[in-house]
Amino acid sequence: MSTNLTIALDAMGGDGAPEIVIEGANIARERYSGIKFLFFGDEAKIKPLISKHKELLSISEIVHTPDIITAEEKPSQALRTGRKSSMWLAIEAVRDDLAGGVVSAGNTGALMAISRIVLGMIPGIIRPAIASVLPTRTGQAVMLDLGANAECSVEHLVQFAVMGDAFARSALHMLEPKIGLLNIGTEDNKGTDSIRQAHTILKKMKGDDSEFALNYHGFVEGYDAPYGTVDVIVADGFSGNVCLKTIEGTAKLYAGMMRQAIKHSLIGKIGYLMALPAFNRLKERVDPRRYNGALFLGVNGSVVKSHGGADAYAFSCAVSVACDMIKNGFVERVRDEIEHMSHAIMASKVSDEG
Amino acid sequence: MSTNLTIALDAMGGDGAPEIVIEGANIARERYSGIKFLFFGDEAKIKPLISKHKELLSISEIVHTPDIITAEEKPSQALRTGRKSSMWLAIEAVRDDLAGGVVSAGNTGALMAISRIVLGMIPGIIRPAIASVLPTRTGQAVMLDLGANAECSVEHLVQFAVMGDAFARSALHMLEPKIGLLNIGTEDNKGTDSIRQAHTILKKMKGDDSEFALNYHGFVEGYDAPYGTVDVIVADGFSGNVCLKTIEGTAKLYAGMMRQAIKHSLIGKIGYLMALPAFNRLKERVDPRRYNGALFLGVNGSVVKSHGGADAYAFSCAVSVACDMIKNGFVERVRDEIEHMSHAIMASKVSDEG
Repeated sequence: MSTNLTIALDAMGGDGAPEIVIEGANIARERYSGIKFLFFGDEAKIKPLISKHKELLSISEIVHTPDIITAEEKPSQALRTGRKSSMWLAIEAVRDDLAGGVVSAGNTGALMAISRIVLGMIPGIIRPAIASVLPTRTGQAVMLDLGANAECSVEHLVQFAVMGDAFARSALHMLEPKIGLLNIGTEDNKGTDSIRQAHTILKKMKGDDSEFALNYHGFVEGYDAPYGTVDVIVADGFSGNVCLKTIEGTAKLYAGMMRQAIKHSLIGKIGYLMALPAFNRLKERVDPRRYNGALFLGVNGSVVKSHGGADAYAFSCAVSVACDMIKNGFVERVRDEIEHMSHAIMASKVSDEG
Repeated sequence: MSTNLTIALDAMGGDGAPEIVIEGANIARERYSGIKFLFFGDEAKIKPLISKHKELLSISEIVHTPDIITAEEKPSQALRTGRKSSMWLAIEAVRDDLAGGVVSAGNTGALMAISRIVLGMIPGIIRPAIASVLPTRTGQAVMLDLGANAECSVEHLVQFAVMGDAFARSALHMLEPKIGLLNIGTEDNKGTDSIRQAHTILKKMKGDDSEFALNYHGFVEGYDAPYGTVDVIVADGFSGNVCLKTIEGTAKLYAGMMRQAIKHSLIGKIGYLMALPAFNRLKERVDPRRYNGALFLGVNGSVVKSHGGADAYAFSCAVSVACDMIKNGFVERVRDEIEHMSHAIMASKVSDEG
């Protein structure tokens, strides 16, 4: 397994670029021995910022790039005119093995499109999926797809399960991640044809007698995503997107309503102040900065999209996700699982027909 | 408009039947002048319970029914053998105009199936939708479909918008309810073909120069459902179901984590006790009992499904929903809107082709 812990960073992507990118790298640096950075962007701007941090400077290289892909550019435009941009060249560094992975806080659509073109897909993977980690009652879980594919076939869903499994193992350090398939009920007859068929295949893959057996739990419902019933939530891109955004909206709403309710009375305010350390612990646990980083799973490399508005700490968390995926061989695991699975599916098809 | 405020009650449905049904009716009674009840069920059990409440007794009739549809029965079985059940006969009372609407806390699948068979659909409505009211930041909203139709065509979605509009007007007392279509982004090119086409039609219906013009807001996302961006959230049954259950799960999770965080320290507990009245106000506002009642919109009558585990207060809220739908002419409004719409769509098709 190649564990190239050099991370290519698009220094010009995101609202706070390049400062946030460099400060974020400097935070992430402390977490990994052997980590190195390749910064892509405007050298005149980047160099003085890196030079502020002696240790960061010693593990960093700058590649000057003349162009920037803006947040407004359409993916098609970025593909046509972005070849000399910080984003494009950072991705190329992964293709050329100069870096093990890439992190950008820039234009999401462009990052996805360029990654697909430059890196291609992991052999056997039909479609990439967007994944994200979310806090749950019991810890954290990864959910995919979050909108790359509004409509999904059986094969897509099964491959998402494989990729989610590999991600939970590599980036969330789980040994046998429990996998659930998002549905509108838990009985076998619920949901769409694609979901029911994917369910049947995943049940077979649970019984698979190899190191690639999936710990498939079965159908899960909207409740289960925040509850932590499973470690990997597999969904079509439409309902996955709805589920994730609903969690975010509901969490924000309840926090706001709580504040409002408390501030209604003086005694409420005093009580709130006394309970503040407890609230802060909770806030820290569900801090969205800790869960920064959308993953483009399926492209042949570790590509992490940081939120455009990320601060340095949040950006450092996105860098950590890339590091963990590289260190623990995410891409290699998916490649091996998919290869094994294609044999297994073939075998099961033969036995179905036989 | 016929406003028959006699409510048919399936006295034998739900975990707490028949006590809860009768106590719930007795609470709802105080909210509506002219309300009457037809109780369907085991007379020997029901009569003594009603007799405890003099005023309730004076506005109630009991129809003895020998059979009960259990929670475990499949809809197909209920359709075959349930013709003398409390649920079936309560629904028939609506068909025969003995009651204006029906409420049951019994088997959901059976209630839906029997309602469709006995009442038929509102003329022009292709498929029924399950709807529910939810608390939002700004008040409340109605969401549909919640799972009756895992996959939806353009026509289904447009009709759900019409039914959601009529429900918000009649049961939520809104004058020009804002309608949103659940999607994974707000740009015109996002989502599936059906959703984009429904979006185009709904935009036209917004510009409609009649009393039936819909106040169509456009696409909304998962965030918007709890936030209260719109009053009516139209979704396919799959993502609507995911969205509703995700809201419920997230709300429960955050309340639990909050409690856990607070109980961690003595000072936190004291602070919590001081802020308790504020928390209780919030709890009351989002009390799920207030939002009890799933609606089967589209069947030709006001059919409300109470949660099986409802208490008397929750059941009374489900009765109120039925009363408001009847009083404010939900079925009539849908019928008129659909009739108007079919002309409007025809006209727009002609102009598209012309």
